[in-house]
Amino acid sequence: MAAVFNQIAIIGVGLIGGSIARAALEKGAAGEVVLFDGNADALKRAGEIGFGKPAAGIEAAVANADAVFHCVPVGAMGATARASIAAMKSGAILTDVGSVKGNVARDFRGLGRSDIHVIPGHPIAGTEKSGPDAGFASLFENRWCILTPEPDGDADHVAATDRLAAFWTALGSKVERMDAQRHDLVLAVTSHIPHLIAYNMVATAYDMEAVTEGEVVKFSAAGFRDFTRIAASDPTMWRDVFLNNKEAVLDVLGRFEEDLTALRKAIRNADGQKLFDTFTESRRIRREIIDAGQDTASANFGRDKPKT
Amino acid sequence: MAAVFNQIAIIGVGLIGGSIARAALEKGAAGEVVLFDGNADALKRAGEIGFGKPAAGIEAAVANADAVFHCVPVGAMGATARASIAAMKSGAILTDVGSVKGNVARDFRGLGRSDIHVIPGHPIAGTEKSGPDAGFASLFENRWCILTPEPDGDADHVAATDRLAAFWTALGSKVERMDAQRHDLVLAVTSHIPHLIAYNMVATAYDMEAVTEGEVVKFSAAGFRDFTRIAASDPTMWRDVFLNNKEAVLDVLGRFEEDLTALRKAIRNADGQKLFDTFTESRRIRREIIDAGQDTASANFGRDKPKT
Repeated sequence: MAAVFNQIAIIGVGLIGGSIARAALEKGAAGEVVLFDGNADALKRAGEIGFGKPAAGIEAAVANADAVFHCVPVGAMGATARASIAAMKSGAILTDVGSVKGNVARDFRGLGRSDIHVIPGHPIAGTEKSGPDAGFASLFENRWCILTPEPDGDADHVAATDRLAAFWTALGSKVERMDAQRHDLVLAVTSHIPHLIAYNMVATAYDMEAVTEGEVVKFSAAGFRDFTRIAASDPTMWRDVFLNNKEAVLDVLGRFEEDLTALRKAIRNADGQKLFDTFTESRRIRREIIDAGQDTASANFGRDKPKT
Repeated sequence: MAAVFNQIAIIGVGLIGGSIARAALEKGAAGEVVLFDGNADALKRAGEIGFGKPAAGIEAAVANADAVFHCVPVGAMGATARASIAAMKSGAILTDVGSVKGNVARDFRGLGRSDIHVIPGHPIAGTEKSGPDAGFASLFENRWCILTPEPDGDADHVAATDRLAAFWTALGSKVERMDAQRHDLVLAVTSHIPHLIAYNMVATAYDMEAVTEGEVVKFSAAGFRDFTRIAASDPTMWRDVFLNNKEAVLDVLGRFEEDLTALRKAIRNADGQKLFDTFTESRRIRREIIDAGQDTASANFGRDKPKT
């Protein structure tokens, strides 16, 4: 295919940054990929793996890029963008991959380069692994990528958004445009609160003095092990998500706690009908997610396959 | 191998009962498997699949069995055991596969057949699927099976427990003997509360009037989809678990809620260190579970494999 961008810069070569670089080169969505990471070891490793050209500094990395992807924890986005904004080409795209969009959009737009297109983004993809070796080119295939362009952007801004959308489409993603605040509320539901309660469940289990850690590990296949996978995600990334999406997270968490109180009451009162009705509805949602191609229908995600 | 039991009876031919029957025959752990299910369609289907001989009634099913496995929801165990206890052979084993052991042990031991060995059991294995077609012979391989024999049982009872343990070992399981009350507390941590909060998370998501069900489904890959798998498990089974393990469930749930309140406070106060520390500890537990062979180390459970 014809490259969507002649050159892109990837700031932060972890799971997501590394996967974008690999996918962009493998699918020809970018002519050239330039890499930078504040962690010299990670940058060196990325160069060894060979999914882009390491740059000597962050300004050098962005200088000729048509699009700059900041792939660092949400709390570090402001700093990496500030450190490189002056070196960016006029007309280039400034974007990111963070799990929170409101604060990132505000930070990026406050940098004062009106000749640059600020289009924050969020590919809904990932695994519990971190680092340059964790990435792979097919990570974004059949996954959604949300872009949050300026709501009242001019024709140039719309065209830039179209180019960025074409890039993600070339990587196999389906693209959705959304208001940043709405993104933050939707993701609080589908991602941030699920991660918070998974982390919390794991913490509760290892803090139970009456149950040993060995018992928790041995009998984890009963359901708990699924939570530990989610709770093995990068701690810095998730700390920043909760610090930067406080309002939506506290809103959804409040509703989660209200619903949990109702289930607790049903258990205390032996209200089997309430429990049964709640549990029955969940199966329907699972069916929809599988039908939408967002998960496998295989039992246990296919990890305990019947041996034939 | 030499069969551990000449004949076993499986009461309830769902995921677990069906898997025991298949595994027992495939691995030669039982000479003969006789089946019964109160649902005539399920029993007919089990006969068609051919993993045992359907019996005309529950008393006929157990009459010649050396071990009777009740594989029905916890709330139905008392009724199926009561309906068949009189027909059981003297010296036979009465067992089950329920996720709660205290109430089942009490019900079974209250049936007044002191010439029968009551040894409740719980294989820590399963998937989110239900019904006779969901079972497979390798389901129990490398999984733990907990047996809760009488704490003060005589030599005969110990020998019967050894036979039942040998049966589960033949199916590929690792066997642990445990007090019924302790089982119920440990499983509240590793299974019951994780299921409850997964069900609750799904309920919260579809009750959010500000976020559409379509958005939840589309962006579920961000973490939520894992919860929907757990929450797709059999509603009757889980209703009965919560009704029959009320005390331990409410205890662990109380601790979960306390811990969640502490995380909520950390978010509200922007206490990044508390969040980071909690999230970091979870990775260690995940590592232990993988090292113990209780889960796959593959990213996303291997369901989004890098395409090669």
